[in-house]
Amino acid sequence: MKISVQAVTVDTFAHSLSCLSALLEKGLAHSIARKFDPSVLVTARLAPDMFPLSRQVQLSCDLAKNSVARLAGLEPPRFEDNEKTIEELRARIARTVDYLKGVPASALEGSEGRAIRVPAGPDKFLDFKGLDFIQRWAIPNVFFHITTAYAILRHNGVDIGKRDFLG
Amino acid sequence: MKISVQAVTVDTFAHSLSCLSALLEKGLAHSIARKFDPSVLVTARLAPDMFPLSRQVQLSCDLAKNSVARLAGLEPPRFEDNEKTIEELRARIARTVDYLKGVPASALEGSEGRAIRVPAGPDKFLDFKGLDFIQRWAIPNVFFHITTAYAILRHNGVDIGKRDFLG
Repeated sequence: MKISVQAVTVDTFAHSLSCLSALLEKGLAHSIARKFDPSVLVTARLAPDMFPLSRQVQLSCDLAKNSVARLAGLEPPRFEDNEKTIEELRARIARTVDYLKGVPASALEGSEGRAIRVPAGPDKFLDFKGLDFIQRWAIPNVFFHITTAYAILRHNGVDIGKRDFLG
Repeated sequence: MKISVQAVTVDTFAHSLSCLSALLEKGLAHSIARKFDPSVLVTARLAPDMFPLSRQVQLSCDLAKNSVARLAGLEPPRFEDNEKTIEELRARIARTVDYLKGVPASALEGSEGRAIRVPAGPDKFLDFKGLDFIQRWAIPNVFFHITTAYAILRHNGVDIGKRDFLG
C-alpha cells in the first residue's frame, strides 16, 4: 500500500483550506469585538509589495484548485477575483473545497507520472513530472499562501494559534 | 504506481529546507549590504508573542526530522536549540537534511498505516494513523514554519520572492 495523489492533494488541501476558513471567521469576530472595519484585515499585508490577505486567500484557493485540475487533466473553473469581505473569501474557500472533492479519484489515479506544464510568463512554461509537481509546486504553493494569510491575521492581533492552523 | 511516504516527506521537506537555507543566505547578504547586524533578522518576529526567525528555523528542522523519525519508528537525534547566527541556522538545516536523507526507505515503507503518537502536553497525546499524520501534522507544520521564516525575512525588507521559496 502507498499513498494516492488524492490523499496528498485533495484531502490535504481541503482540510487546510477549511482551517483557513475558520481562521478568517476568527478574524471577523476579532474586528467586531474591537469595533474596527473588517476590510482593514482584508487589505492588510506584511510588506508594501506583498499581496494583501484577500489575494493570499484567492491564491490559496486557486493553487489548490488548479494544481488538482492539472494533475487530473481537467480544465478548472475560473473564479473571479472580486471578493471584498471575509464572508466572500470564506465562500470562495467553500466553493474551492467543493470543487476539490468533486474531482473523481479515477482522474487522479496514476497522475504522479503525468507530464504537467505550468504557464510561467509569455511563451514560458515550467515542466514537471506529476510527482515533482506535487512536491515542488502544489504543496509548497498552497501552504505558502495559507500560512501567509495566517501570518497577516496574527500580525494584526487576531487571537489565533498553530492549533487553529492545524485544525 | 502510487506515491511513497519517502517522496512526500523526506524528499519534499529536504527540498524546501534547502530553499529555506538559500533564503537565509539572502537575509545575511541583505544585512551586510545594508550594514546592519544580522542578529536583528535572527531575533525578528511578526508579533510580540510569536517565535522569532531563529525558532521558526529550528522548528522547521525539528518538525521535519521528528515527523520522519516517527513515521520510520526511529528515535530522532536531538539538536540543541543554541543557534545565534544565520550561519548556525543554515548548519542546522544542513544537518537536518543529512538526517532526512539517511533514513532508510525501507523504514518508511508502509508507514502510512502505522499508529503515530505525538506528545501534546503532560499526560496528553495526539494519536494519528500514518497517513493522517502526514496530511494534518507533518506537511502543514513543516510548511507553516518555513513560510513564517520567509515572511519574517520579507517583512524586514529582504529582497526575496516566491521563486526563492519554491527553489
